Amino acid sequence: MPRIKRIDHVAVVVADLDEATAFWQDALGLPIAALKEEPAEKAVVAFLPVNGSEIELVKPTAGDSGTAKFLAKRGPGMHHLCLEVEDLDGMLARLKARGVRLIHDEPVEKPNGVRYAFVHPKSAHGVLVELYEKPA
Amino acid sequence: MPRIKRIDHVAVVVADLDEATAFWQDALGLPIAALKEEPAEKAVVAFLPVNGSEIELVKPTAGDSGTAKFLAKRGPGMHHLCLEVEDLDGMLARLKARGVRLIHDEPVEKPNGVRYAFVHPKSAHGVLVELYEKPA
Repeated sequence: MPRIKRIDHVAVVVADLDEATAFWQDALGLPIAALKEEPAEKAVVAFLPVNGSEIELVKPTAGDSGTAKFLAKRGPGMHHLCLEVEDLDGMLARLKARGVRLIHDEPVEKPNGVRYAFVHPKSAHGVLVELYEKPA
Repeated sequence: MPRIKRIDHVAVVVADLDEATAFWQDALGLPIAALKEEPAEKAVVAFLPVNGSEIELVKPTAGDSGTAKFLAKRGPGMHHLCLEVEDLDGMLARLKARGVRLIHDEPVEKPNGVRYAFVHPKSAHGVLVELYEKPA
């Protein structure tokens, strides 16, 4: 039975990681647990755990990525909301049956076994929703 | 010692609560636990718990509120990120000492004892951050 388990992360697009770190880590006190170059996303991502969820600061590293275009058009801010799902295939089937528009009709699998799919913001009231499933 | 405890909620501004319910509750399967008229915020808010955090769907009920202006300017989407804080007074003092711009210099107290303050998005890289403290 497909179901949403938790908020996995809120992704924030930033223009400058040092300035973002000064606010999120130094001022708010959320330590950056990891900082990773993500070539597939053309971004550097800082991961700040908060009680089982994460805030992810995403700094685009190339001008032609989705987050770079978002930054150029809207400025820095919340980019997407990622929800952990149990039974991602079942969830996507249910969404399709209800006419929800998906960016990925089938889950994309990462090398680490994580599978994800994005819902189109037109079907989620302006929110870019990522659905993600951990490997069994 | 001031610290962030968890993501309390992600607030999403919506234009139509029935349509939003069709996606968030009926399709994704997140039940609406409460639906409240919030006169102070000039909005109706649907609360969808997700493993100790919440997604809040905010439908403005008057044209002159902050969320109504957001909706008119940017369309529906993620509006703010609320973090639960331990020692809100200490947190605000630390933020001010670091030059972080606040919308509320002092906490606002609700009738139920909850205290909150918003950080200005210019100081939080485009994210409207709400800091909130439960009554002791």
